[in-house]
Amino acid sequence: MLKPESVAIIGASNTPGKVGYIILKNYLEEEYRGRIYPININDETIQGLRAYKSIRDVGERVDLAVIAIPAMAVPAVLEECGKAKVRSVVVISGGFSEVGNTALQNKLVSIAKKYKMPTLGPNCLGVMDPRSRIDTMFLPENKLSKPKIGGVSFVSQSGAVGSTVLDLIAKEGIGLSKFISYGNAADVDEVDIMEYLLKDEETKVIIVYIEGAKRGKEFLEVGKKVAKKKPVVIIKGGTTAAGAVAAHSHTASLAGSNEAYDAVFRQCGFSIAKDLDDLLYFGKAFATEPEPKGNRVMVITNGGGTGVLTTDAVNNAGLKMAAMSAQSQKELRKAMPMTVNIRNPLDLVGDADEKRYRDALSAISNDKDIDMLIVIALFQTPGADENLAAALVDFKRNSKKPMIVISAGSQYTEERKIMMEDEGLPVYDSPAAAANSLAELLKYSKFRKGIV
Amino acid sequence: MLKPESVAIIGASNTPGKVGYIILKNYLEEEYRGRIYPININDETIQGLRAYKSIRDVGERVDLAVIAIPAMAVPAVLEECGKAKVRSVVVISGGFSEVGNTALQNKLVSIAKKYKMPTLGPNCLGVMDPRSRIDTMFLPENKLSKPKIGGVSFVSQSGAVGSTVLDLIAKEGIGLSKFISYGNAADVDEVDIMEYLLKDEETKVIIVYIEGAKRGKEFLEVGKKVAKKKPVVIIKGGTTAAGAVAAHSHTASLAGSNEAYDAVFRQCGFSIAKDLDDLLYFGKAFATEPEPKGNRVMVITNGGGTGVLTTDAVNNAGLKMAAMSAQSQKELRKAMPMTVNIRNPLDLVGDADEKRYRDALSAISNDKDIDMLIVIALFQTPGADENLAAALVDFKRNSKKPMIVISAGSQYTEERKIMMEDEGLPVYDSPAAAANSLAELLKYSKFRKGIV
Repeated sequence: MLKPESVAIIGASNTPGKVGYIILKNYLEEEYRGRIYPININDETIQGLRAYKSIRDVGERVDLAVIAIPAMAVPAVLEECGKAKVRSVVVISGGFSEVGNTALQNKLVSIAKKYKMPTLGPNCLGVMDPRSRIDTMFLPENKLSKPKIGGVSFVSQSGAVGSTVLDLIAKEGIGLSKFISYGNAADVDEVDIMEYLLKDEETKVIIVYIEGAKRGKEFLEVGKKVAKKKPVVIIKGGTTAAGAVAAHSHTASLAGSNEAYDAVFRQCGFSIAKDLDDLLYFGKAFATEPEPKGNRVMVITNGGGTGVLTTDAVNNAGLKMAAMSAQSQKELRKAMPMTVNIRNPLDLVGDADEKRYRDALSAISNDKDIDMLIVIALFQTPGADENLAAALVDFKRNSKKPMIVISAGSQYTEERKIMMEDEGLPVYDSPAAAANSLAELLKYSKFRKGIV
Repeated sequence: MLKPESVAIIGASNTPGKVGYIILKNYLEEEYRGRIYPININDETIQGLRAYKSIRDVGERVDLAVIAIPAMAVPAVLEECGKAKVRSVVVISGGFSEVGNTALQNKLVSIAKKYKMPTLGPNCLGVMDPRSRIDTMFLPENKLSKPKIGGVSFVSQSGAVGSTVLDLIAKEGIGLSKFISYGNAADVDEVDIMEYLLKDEETKVIIVYIEGAKRGKEFLEVGKKVAKKKPVVIIKGGTTAAGAVAAHSHTASLAGSNEAYDAVFRQCGFSIAKDLDDLLYFGKAFATEPEPKGNRVMVITNGGGTGVLTTDAVNNAGLKMAAMSAQSQKELRKAMPMTVNIRNPLDLVGDADEKRYRDALSAISNDKDIDMLIVIALFQTPGADENLAAALVDFKRNSKKPMIVISAGSQYTEERKIMMEDEGLPVYDSPAAAANSLAELLKYSKFRKGIV
């Protein structure tokens, strides 16, 4: 499904704006290198490609069929896919259990099972893999940015959350391995997806939006296995009573009690995100940062107030401000001007430039009493520029400690932020985001070592 | 200080990069229309203007003197300002109590008091007022965006937090009335500033970053008076033990217990922000939204999952999902396609366009069982474009209920977000930000009516 050599698009269309038009157009624009078979009963050619009236007319092996036709017509087409020995299917179409059509959805499941043909959806966006250039989404190319290739796989029961977060993944500079939007989970469900991602070597970190797991016991089993190998960050929609009702009418999920889910996630060893920001921030930290050795954080800043707020955030996250070694203090005192107090947070003062940051980082680089670093670089100040961004990237390259940068602002800052993120340095907007992400790294490291 | 007709810049310089160079350059570039007197013992002309060796040589009334010279030289210069009958002073220079030079700071205070010359700082960025075009900040113009003119005044004890938040105020499309960075609060302090903003008719909303208030009793008194007239959102740096220590070495603030401050803020009727994001989000909601009549929220969305998360956020914020009137339900059923379930959250489904939003909003516009609105517009979907942005702006113009839009994403979304914010419609990234901001509006409205 994720590495197909041939794809049939059932419902492919010549009419701009139609789902079947956009999906095919995306394939052509992304230069997907496998074979593409547009299927449509009306047209001879679609967007310049030869079209087929039925999947059974193709006469060659089809690895993946993407179905984007009205719900009522899906079972018959799925049956044809089975007969044509299609190897996997994504059903984009909605109009099944989520609107009460349980019988229609059951039919779909029984056909998928009969032909042993893994079927994703219905009521979903399908899959995306920037390596194989597969993309079954019906979203116009200009409306969301494409993430770069990387190690984070994103599983979303909701298409809307999926497309928004995917767009934000690109914006945050996070590298994507797989995107899987699975909607009603009629045949392929979260358990199957987790089993796949457990084995997938391109996937280093998993982030998940889920509304409900049908096979609770199996989910717990596979979840435990996955988290032992790779970090999982999860957010559940429908944690309140009203939210659970909304989730049911969205993906026909039976929410179960929030406490029960929380317990399962904790037993698995997942990081629990309380909102989408956390999902992105924690995922970003896991994607780029090594395991911390302990809970002691050093904070370096060119803004005193932001240093104060970060100190509060470090403590609120359950971490500790590091007490620097005597050696570090001595070296810092030698290297820093008298306006800089040698303490943690280390306030390099508003006129700090690249050199002062380099000197400060170098002075503490071998300090065994420091486990993690938060470096605040406020680019509104006179001395902070692209050279400072480069200095932080350089330091990070030779450091084995987790390090997060805090920079917030408009265009000038955003540009320098992108420079750093392109080089694999995670940059966050807020002290709380940075400190909480470091705390999650530590929690997961303890879980892996069996300390929790 | 904020509406000066003449400004002296003491320490003005011809050397690019120097504080006194940047401050003067900013005045010239912002086309400040009052008189400017550069003061510097060395040069005859500075950046093309006639320079004076001393403030006493100017011979005309000076409304504001901005001092940016080494700390040790400040008292003598301040004395000269007093003799020259300067009406107010901003001391940018650092190097006083925050580094232990309490005696030097006390000297400064006694001179300011002797001449009854209100003196802001030291160790601060000073003031900015986009109406009078006063700007004493020494930050390069290209590094931070300028906020548009509006009703939000921002008071920051920290210069770094000040400049970052100012940059974010511009990015978020919030209109600024005054920016006041007051540093060590040696002479003019938070009590004086609040008294000024209480009376200032251009200020409709106040947001504050504070590290400590020296005159607790007076602060409580003026705080109560201010909050009765205008909403105040406040964040305190140094809420943890380690943070309080950091705050002391930053602005020499004595933090006091976090509980004590919390109690004072609550007694005043302030909104308490737990991070800088809250400060901006709450401030933005207060700046644009009317008082809500009750706690019942209607959520309209083109993404089911985001609707679920927003339902959770509404409940977590202590608000309620509205139960629509029978009339609204009837009209919605008539206007919406069958794929749309008539409920709250109202999921207009992924193919919703401008028209569907207009129809839905129109159907519920007179519903007395709805107090507030959250409209989710995910621009990654095929039907959402600038016409949808315009539709939301149109609806808002004729509505008397608080309404917040949620849109998150990269460039395409950001552009449409700016379109809406330019028309005074607040747009937020996350469900929690939107719901928590509405909850603060309601809390403040109850406080004003004496219900709390």
